[in-house]
Amino acid sequence: MRLKNIKGAKETVLKSHYVIENPNFFCGKWNQCFQNENPIYIEIGMGKGRFIIENAIRYPNINFIGIDVYYSVLIKAVKTLETLNLPNLKIIPMDAREIEQIFDHEIERLYLNFSDPWPKNRHEKRRLTSEIFLKKYDSIWKKDKWISMKTDNRHLFEYSILSCTNYGYHIKEISLNLYEDNPENNIPTEYEIKFSNKGFPIYKIEFKK
Amino acid sequence: MRLKNIKGAKETVLKSHYVIENPNFFCGKWNQCFQNENPIYIEIGMGKGRFIIENAIRYPNINFIGIDVYYSVLIKAVKTLETLNLPNLKIIPMDAREIEQIFDHEIERLYLNFSDPWPKNRHEKRRLTSEIFLKKYDSIWKKDKWISMKTDNRHLFEYSILSCTNYGYHIKEISLNLYEDNPENNIPTEYEIKFSNKGFPIYKIEFKK
Repeated sequence: MRLKNIKGAKETVLKSHYVIENPNFFCGKWNQCFQNENPIYIEIGMGKGRFIIENAIRYPNINFIGIDVYYSVLIKAVKTLETLNLPNLKIIPMDAREIEQIFDHEIERLYLNFSDPWPKNRHEKRRLTSEIFLKKYDSIWKKDKWISMKTDNRHLFEYSILSCTNYGYHIKEISLNLYEDNPENNIPTEYEIKFSNKGFPIYKIEFKK
Repeated sequence: MRLKNIKGAKETVLKSHYVIENPNFFCGKWNQCFQNENPIYIEIGMGKGRFIIENAIRYPNINFIGIDVYYSVLIKAVKTLETLNLPNLKIIPMDAREIEQIFDHEIERLYLNFSDPWPKNRHEKRRLTSEIFLKKYDSIWKKDKWISMKTDNRHLFEYSILSCTNYGYHIKEISLNLYEDNPENNIPTEYEIKFSNKGFPIYKIEFKK
């Protein structure tokens, strides 16, 4: 996502008690950050946070960590969170390329929602389901390896199916039109609401290893 | 496909020299039927035959066998073939459930085009990508196991992805909108021309094991 830079966004985001400024400190001991042994689910590219905040509200016995590199979108999440008390949610402002320095075999599920498709072949490495990222994820998983992905980008979806299954992931669930299937427990992102309302199909897949 | 019964269709079809009335005879020795050692590709549900006839014309060094249970559609294929001389094409009128009695480790590729989706759960066994059929196919493969599938039925496509990958097939190629991808060498079926012209997406996938 490309966004206008919002002046002072970084300072405002870092002031929030939801935000972890030095996430390396908790590498291998995120349970200490949450002060419990509940499973930890992460979302890379949490954006304005609708998805992960709603998850944290709905599932208090799961710990959620949202990651995004853009302070100018995280500021919206931080503002939403001002009036909420969610001890099971943390936010890390960081580049996902550094993810293996932040988590050490302690994550049970990874959400990738409407990730940047990086359509050019020469940018393949930047796609969050490229082999480079799948290798990074290997060191974050606790036991189960579980990637949940939603996108409206057909080519990213096709690419991810090939990339993840070639890497050894199995497909546990797939929908090529999530809203036609009328999913009961679906939590949409901001972007998802906008695009599904326009009638574009939303693709969803669950990979496990 | 449900079709009106055409009177005399069976007799007309069986008269064609393209049609093999007692296919069990060639089980394990289809190369003798074609009098060469070229690879053998089959299509289950060949219908009126546009796809397999065009393949046989385009690829003379591959042997093609089309299968269908309905004489009332096979009659159209037989009529098209009257004016063509294609020694690399044979037709078998049969129920695909008996396929393991017809081929013994001699097939290199299976085409499933716009197969009946059998949408009801209780009819799952009848879908040509159900575990029951995948087990039958195990005994037809020569070495490579290669299933090429096209459909406009989203649920059959999703089901087939889960069923085939759970059975050990890998996905080699996938398109969720074949005509948007503008495929150079695609040979359409009669049904495919009709439905893609209406703007419906055509799904395509290549499974290998």
